[in-house]
Amino acid sequence: MKDINELLFLFRPDSAEEESIRKITDFIFEKILSYCRDNNIDAEPVLVGSVAKGTNLKDGDIDVFVRFDRKYARAKMEKWGLSIGHIVLRDGKEKYAEHPYVTGFMNEKKVDIVPCYRMDQGEKKLSSVDRTPLHTEYVKSKLNLEGKDEVRKLKLFMKYIGVYGADARISGFSGYICELLIINMGDFHRTIEAFAAMRGKLVIGDPENTDSFDSPAIVIDPTDKTRNAAAAISVENLSRMKFCSRLYLNGRLPEYNQYNGQRKDTKDRGTNLSIFRIKKPDIMDDILYPQVMRFKNAIWEIMERNDLRPVSWEVCVKDHIDVVIESENKAVPALKIHQGPPVDEPSSLDFYNKWMNMEISRGPYILGDRIYVDLIRQQKSIDDVVREGLKNVNIGKNIDDQKEAMEIFDPYDTGKDSCALDLFLSKFIFQAHPPEKTSRNTRSS
Amino acid sequence: MKDINELLFLFRPDSAEEESIRKITDFIFEKILSYCRDNNIDAEPVLVGSVAKGTNLKDGDIDVFVRFDRKYARAKMEKWGLSIGHIVLRDGKEKYAEHPYVTGFMNEKKVDIVPCYRMDQGEKKLSSVDRTPLHTEYVKSKLNLEGKDEVRKLKLFMKYIGVYGADARISGFSGYICELLIINMGDFHRTIEAFAAMRGKLVIGDPENTDSFDSPAIVIDPTDKTRNAAAAISVENLSRMKFCSRLYLNGRLPEYNQYNGQRKDTKDRGTNLSIFRIKKPDIMDDILYPQVMRFKNAIWEIMERNDLRPVSWEVCVKDHIDVVIESENKAVPALKIHQGPPVDEPSSLDFYNKWMNMEISRGPYILGDRIYVDLIRQQKSIDDVVREGLKNVNIGKNIDDQKEAMEIFDPYDTGKDSCALDLFLSKFIFQAHPPEKTSRNTRSS
Repeated sequence: MKDINELLFLFRPDSAEEESIRKITDFIFEKILSYCRDNNIDAEPVLVGSVAKGTNLKDGDIDVFVRFDRKYARAKMEKWGLSIGHIVLRDGKEKYAEHPYVTGFMNEKKVDIVPCYRMDQGEKKLSSVDRTPLHTEYVKSKLNLEGKDEVRKLKLFMKYIGVYGADARISGFSGYICELLIINMGDFHRTIEAFAAMRGKLVIGDPENTDSFDSPAIVIDPTDKTRNAAAAISVENLSRMKFCSRLYLNGRLPEYNQYNGQRKDTKDRGTNLSIFRIKKPDIMDDILYPQVMRFKNAIWEIMERNDLRPVSWEVCVKDHIDVVIESENKAVPALKIHQGPPVDEPSSLDFYNKWMNMEISRGPYILGDRIYVDLIRQQKSIDDVVREGLKNVNIGKNIDDQKEAMEIFDPYDTGKDSCALDLFLSKFIFQAHPPEKTSRNTRSS
Repeated sequence: MKDINELLFLFRPDSAEEESIRKITDFIFEKILSYCRDNNIDAEPVLVGSVAKGTNLKDGDIDVFVRFDRKYARAKMEKWGLSIGHIVLRDGKEKYAEHPYVTGFMNEKKVDIVPCYRMDQGEKKLSSVDRTPLHTEYVKSKLNLEGKDEVRKLKLFMKYIGVYGADARISGFSGYICELLIINMGDFHRTIEAFAAMRGKLVIGDPENTDSFDSPAIVIDPTDKTRNAAAAISVENLSRMKFCSRLYLNGRLPEYNQYNGQRKDTKDRGTNLSIFRIKKPDIMDDILYPQVMRFKNAIWEIMERNDLRPVSWEVCVKDHIDVVIESENKAVPALKIHQGPPVDEPSSLDFYNKWMNMEISRGPYILGDRIYVDLIRQQKSIDDVVREGLKNVNIGKNIDDQKEAMEIFDPYDTGKDSCALDLFLSKFIFQAHPPEKTSRNTRSS
């Protein structure tokens, strides 16, 4: 890869951008303060997120929270939050995370105006966004200017290998985790060294707090000792981070463009590729992605149960939800060796009585300590089997609504393309992501 | 099945046969005694086996042992044994078990003349045949006339379901075990009830003796408490015996001819059948069969390792040794998902470095906590893969000599038949056996 300092130089906001951000936030703060004054609301604007902490990369979003006193009812606070959002952002759109919020653009910068409640450290949060200002304060108090650039380097490295982002789509490292890592390890290089040397879980925090968690990565949130701030990180992304850190220290981390997203068109794998495509419901990624994974798992299990022998998969969400599954078999194999109970079980006699009266291929016979029969099944296609199987699976309302209209095709037979096929064919040591995101992820850091 | 008493009536020796046996043994005893007298040898004839114990079925063999004093050297005793054998049996042939012996026919009855040493109970045996006369004495002392017929019923039942015979080909119940079962359980019906109710192992004997054995069936030999007389019984045959006993008590044990050996010609199993055929070496079954099983296991493992997905098998020894293996795949699949080490292992870096420089289908990539690559293999046939694989496997001299000349064929494609295919297609709750035996099995009871 490129030298990390060169990357920092390329992706650190320049002074013009910093000046622009300052102007935008001044303007927004003024608007919010005057609205609250005019309407006699006990609330104030707070700049949060990477911009507030000075760990932002080029073209980052500006996140402004409107922090309300806890005396206000949720409905009232949310109504005011949206009103303020629309006043600040003339063309803003309403989105929904834990509270509804308004998102839009100002001087070509993406801006979110998000309502939350005031919360002191140790105080019970009312929703997870309430905690965000505490994170901002904590990080600001711990990082100096150099530390902020070290965080930027770590974020760039993680983006490079595809593990940056705590949302359900990526299941990787959040910006806050990057900051906590630098605060703990000292700088970028020492953090990379720590990952390169790491065995097993990532654990940061006192054992009395970390012991109660079972995730692959455990980083106790310094603003709330009962919270694992690293809960989103998958074992796969932790493994990628460890492995790529080792490659980096050995000077062997490959050039991004040389590998990432480079499709290898190999039709000669001798397997069967099926793409399962449904319409993308218009919901937040953090609600959608777990459903997409359940959808994929449901198809995988149906294929496995029917001996279609699935061997690998990718999912991609863009205009559609595409799941690609590679399988050894194109159709359900005729032979089913049906294992019955051990002969020691009284039910083995029922098994025998049942199958003695059926038209079967072989048996009943005894192998080891069990009874078996060989059955011949109808040779159903993947299409039939999966459609039939999905009828009885509850994946989640948004996807269940789309199951009926599901399209199933072989990308090679039909010549139809899919971003899931791109991911499949370009699978590499980096985590590849579908080219663009379509909706805002979560609001909590 | 037929009524067991009807079977007994059909297969119990009649008085004419009993009279014939008496005449033959009188004649043999006289010959042996006069030879020993003339040559001043301290030895005497002993009638052993089922004829001696009165538990013989129709057309059973007559086993006469010549029991020598322990003062004679093995070579001398064996030489005399063969001389006596040839004097008794004019057209007798020499065979080899633990000692060489002579086998032949007299008045259409098969007769074996076998040398052994005198041995008292508790005394150290010199070879396993020396124990046989002790078994004969023990059983004679414990069984009355009714008991003998109960043993005959049990033997007939076990023959019916294919589990009678302790040799390596059958791995079932010996005649001696049948006798011990009746002595222990009282009669045929109670023995069947015991098997029908049995869970787990068959165990007969004091715990202090049985505890040291780990076989599926443990029956302490009353003439030698350190010996498990049931060591030959496979878990499969024990399971068959339990299950068929239950069917029998429920009146559901099917007619033998209706099922056993009835081929179901099912070409529509959607699998691949391969028959591996080699010449049968001219050695005893008890030496041959373990090699045949190793031969089958070697082929199975080679096929499994190459993802040919073997699913079932049979072996048959007649003129040839035939192994039939059913497999899901006809050729090695193109795709090989090659699992590397966990990324926590330093060797994961070697794996990466190795495969980064190779022409591969996909990767290296990370899945869970491990590194992988997808490889494309040459599509080798079963024939190529098994021949190549067997080169490096040591099965046993007698079979290793035949490996080069092995024939491999698909019985359906070639129209060639095989007794292994018969077994394969007629697999049922009974253990089927190839139609005829070609060589004498073991000499020990």
